[in-house]
Parts: sequence; structure tokens; C-alpha cells
Amino acid sequence: MDRDDGALSGEQRLIRDFFQPIATHPGALGLTDDVGVLTPPPGCEVVLKTDAIVGAVHFAPDDPADDVARKALRVNLSDLAAKGARPLGFLLALTLPGDVTQAWLEGFAEGLRTDSVRYGCPLFGGDTDRTPGPISIAVAMFGAVPQGTLVRRSGASPGDRVFVTGTLGDAALGLALRQGASWPLSEPQRRHLASRYVLPRPRTLVADAVRSHATASIDLSDGLARDLATVCRTSEVGADIDLRRLPLSPAAAAVGALDPTALATVVAGGDDYEILCTVPAVHVDSFRTAARAVGVPVTDIGVIVTGSRPVYTGPEGRPFAAPAGFSHF
Amino acid sequence: MDRDDGALSGEQRLIRDFFQPIATHPGALGLTDDVGVLTPPPGCEVVLKTDAIVGAVHFAPDDPADDVARKALRVNLSDLAAKGARPLGFLLALTLPGDVTQAWLEGFAEGLRTDSVRYGCPLFGGDTDRTPGPISIAVAMFGAVPQGTLVRRSGASPGDRVFVTGTLGDAALGLALRQGASWPLSEPQRRHLASRYVLPRPRTLVADAVRSHATASIDLSDGLARDLATVCRTSEVGADIDLRRLPLSPAAAAVGALDPTALATVVAGGDDYEILCTVPAVHVDSFRTAARAVGVPVTDIGVIVTGSRPVYTGPEGRPFAAPAGFSHF
Repeated sequence: MDRDDGALSGEQRLIRDFFQPIATHPGALGLTDDVGVLTPPPGCEVVLKTDAIVGAVHFAPDDPADDVARKALRVNLSDLAAKGARPLGFLLALTLPGDVTQAWLEGFAEGLRTDSVRYGCPLFGGDTDRTPGPISIAVAMFGAVPQGTLVRRSGASPGDRVFVTGTLGDAALGLALRQGASWPLSEPQRRHLASRYVLPRPRTLVADAVRSHATASIDLSDGLARDLATVCRTSEVGADIDLRRLPLSPAAAAVGALDPTALATVVAGGDDYEILCTVPAVHVDSFRTAARAVGVPVTDIGVIVTGSRPVYTGPEGRPFAAPAGFSHF
Repeated sequence: MDRDDGALSGEQRLIRDFFQPIATHPGALGLTDDVGVLTPPPGCEVVLKTDAIVGAVHFAPDDPADDVARKALRVNLSDLAAKGARPLGFLLALTLPGDVTQAWLEGFAEGLRTDSVRYGCPLFGGDTDRTPGPISIAVAMFGAVPQGTLVRRSGASPGDRVFVTGTLGDAALGLALRQGASWPLSEPQRRHLASRYVLPRPRTLVADAVRSHATASIDLSDGLARDLATVCRTSEVGADIDLRRLPLSPAAAAVGALDPTALATVVAGGDDYEILCTVPAVHVDSFRTAARAVGVPVTDIGVIVTGSRPVYTGPEGRPFAAPAGFSHF
């Protein structure tokens, strides 16, 4: 820390050294004021989302600081993408224990910078506070959708196909590895699963396709089982899901071949940060085309039916009882 | 907790029982989705602010839960008011230790409800997480100002009068009482000072007057000394402040009469949540009239001059060296 800037408090120095360099949007007012100012694009609504991550709960003390920063942004970006919104920017409320190091702060700010550029979501303002507890990072993210086009959880109708992006279960299996699961995997397989847990990959690229074609959508953060149940409950429908179609990474498929109980982890595990959306049959081809155009794999895993909850078909065509998904409470 | 709603996670029950009843704005989507949707008033910009409060740092474990909720909102509302903005709504990121009680949550939700109605700032969405640390409450608050009318910290010019709302120092003296200061005060005096620390009173009513008349403005959260120094630094001016004019409550005046060192606490102490603003001489009368019309007392404590920092005149007309204001770092 400088010694010649007595007029600045420690918090003001923190802002100057780490956060002003990444607050490049004019609406951030250079972080020289108490607030930021946002002008939404013409014809758009502002989509609002907040999600916090907490040390020892959502990330480990030895996770790299830049990954922690990026995770804090990405869990919010994932929700925006599922709603068909594009990011506009974010606010950051950071609570730090007394022993946080300069190196951690540098890494954290670098992670924020990288992803705020990558996803086009500049910092508009923030707050830093001390805590006797663990590091906690609350991000409030703002996005935009054309007026009235937000994709809700509640629009699914019988006959709609159920799509998911990417592959499911990697993060949950990665977490199991961290917690000591001893599947004999190759090192690249381990790394793949671990990285999916540490760093979500929000599907921002597919947001436009979702907005144009989906009737309902949710980001898979609490596990397929719970999040699809939420869509069914909110839309007042059932779903018939064929788990044999579930898109798995080679690493997750390898675990599945070694351990038949892994399927339950894949279905119930959280932190996928893929998008589940429902698409009317008539839109399926154009949805697939739009997703392919932005390089996001999408897989049809079943169909919306009348009812009130999902049912699953598992290996060998037998009914599969999905365990409950993740909940912090 | 109900036992017949197995389809809901603990977090979903928490939302249903405590937060859905206060998410009455249509943009909150009944908290049935991952996001909220805000349509700013025509011709307005969205003003963005986040401020978090943390247990054992900003509030005591035995502070009433409804006061804690209200403090979390009010520290943000205070910033909006100082910028001339009116509130539109908020997001809430709540991290809770495992031993939080149903009664605490009920009180907290009731405090949120009371103030969200009082200040016209509905809940648009939130996030609840577990923490091994203390309760932490991060609010992201949104407000509106007509395009281009935000009152910055940076607009003060020599000759502008320096105004403050209300009375200063009460909260800092209230905190000193909590920490064991033994001034022989009456019980109502003690209660007044303590209540100013526990529960800020944001000056939302005076926001329009500030927007119409002030060249620079800041909410006094880190103490007069530090916050005025910030205005001076940002505006590249000095200020000549007469502490004999400082507006004091009867309780604070009583402490001052008992203890000559109290003035330093008043000047440097934080948590006033009054507004300091600078008003050109030609606007002073209309500013006073506008403030009077909404029942907010305002006091002229000095003048902006050329220079780079405030200087203070203290008792008996002698120069007064203001201690640094509050900083968490």
C-alpha cells in the first residue's frame, strides 16, 4: 500500500488499486461516487438477478482467487442466459476476513476483469466490508431483454420437447472427486470434472435462441431433478425424461461405466450451469439450428406431458427414481 | 416448517414463507422465477447501489431482526437520496448461519416489509445461502433519476454553501454508549442516541430538493470529516466549516457539555446517514424552502473555498484538527 495517500481510507485504496481499473463503463462513474447509472437499451426491460457465493460453502479456501471471482459472476450470468437476457453489468458486495492477502485481491480482481470483458458485463459499483467469517461475494447482475420477452419457468406445455445444453453431471462428479471419490480415471478426466465444479460455463451464447424458441427455461444449478421439478410445478405439467439420452462428457461416461450409482449423482447433483428449456415441436428444428450457429450443443432428453412432476426412464428402460436435488437448507 | 411439501427445498420454503408475501411488485414475478424484471420510468436512468451489512460488524447479535432488515435497506436508501434518486426496488442476498431461528426470520421479513412499503422499494428477487460465519445481508438497490440529473460528489464550486440535514454525531455517540461510555445522560437521551445507531433514517424526502438545487452531494456514512474530504477531493475544492454551527440533537449537545472530547466523535464518527450537499448562493433560499416543505431540517455549516481539503473552526473560534473518519480497512 502507498504511504503517501493519507487522504484515502483503506477501502478507498482497495477500490483505487483493484476495482477502478475494471470499472471502465461510463455508468460506473469511475467508482468515484456512491452509485452507478444504467441506461437500458431502448425497448428493453432490465432483468435483475442476485446470487452470492460463500467460502467453505460454494468454493474452497484454496481455489484460485481468479476462479472464485469468475464463479461469482458466472452463476449470475447463467441465470440471465436461461431467461434469454443479455448482460449489461453488475454490482459487487464483497465481505473479506482480516487475513485476506494482497495476492488474493489481485487474483480476484484479475478474474473479475477477465470475465467482465469476456461476457460484456462491466462493474457498475460495489461495497467492501470486513467480516469475522469467510469471504462472501454477492453479485447483483443486470441484463436486458426486449420488453415482454423474458422466458419464464412457467410456460411449458404438453408436447414441448425438453432440451438441455452441454453435458450434465460433470460438476457433481467433480465435487465427489474433491470429497474423496476414488474412481480410477485418467488425469485429463479428473481435471475436466474438477474444472466443471470450480468454474461454471454460463451459456450466454444460446440466450437469443432460447428467447426466440423456448416456452420455459431454467438454468441447472440445483440439479436436473430439482430444477426440472420446479419447471413442472411452475408450469403445472409433467415431463417424461429418458436418462439414456442424457448428454454426458467422456469423463462422466467413464465414471458411469465404473459406478452404476453415479447416474443418481448426475441427475441430482447441482452446479451444472447448463440450460434446460422446453421447445414446442414446431420450433425444434429452428432451435437446433440457432444453437448450432453459436456452437452450443443441445440434446432432446424427453417431452412435457400432462401431470405435475417429472418421471424418468433409466438404464434398460426401467423407471428411475430420481433423488432430490441440492438444497442449502 | 410444513411436512407436506416435499417438492419444495428448504430454500424454496423460506422464500414462500417469508419473502413471497413482500414481493408484491409485478416485476418480482412472485419470486417464482430466477430473476426480476424492472421497467424504469420514461426518461429516467436507473441508479444502482449495493451495500452489505454483516453481523458483529454493522449490527450486534441481539439487535432486533426487524431493525437489522431495515438498516440493510436504509443504508442503501440513504445513498439514493443523496444522489437525488427515488427508490424503485431492491434485490437481497442473505447468508445465514445454521442456527438462525424461525423467530429471527419472521422479524427480519417483517422489517423488510415495513420499510419496503414505507419507502416504496419492493423486493424484486433474492438469494439465500448458508454460511459458517455471521449473518450477512447484501442489498442491491435501484432508483431512478431523470436522465442526466444525478447529483455527483464532484460538482462543488467555491462560494457554494455547505448544508447538512438533521443532526450529526448521534449515531457515533450511540455507538460509544454501547461500547461503555458512561456519560450521565437521561434515559430518553440514551435511547435517542442508541436508536440513531441501530436504525438510520434515510433522507429520501429531501432527494428532490437536492436534485433541484445542489451541485454536489454525499450521504454521511463514514463521518463528516471523511465524507466532506471526499467531496473536496472529488470536486477539487476546499471547505471552510464552522463547527459551532453543527446541528446537534439535545442528547448530543448534552454529551458535548459533559465531555469536550465528544466533538471529535461527532465530526469523525460514522453512521449519521444525513445528507451533506453544496448549494450555490443563488439557490440557497429555494433549497431551504424546498427542504422545509418536506419537513427536513437543513443547516448551513460553512462554505466551499479554493483548496483541496476542509478546514474546521472549533470552539471559541480556534482551528480544529478533525480526526480521520471511519474506515473498515
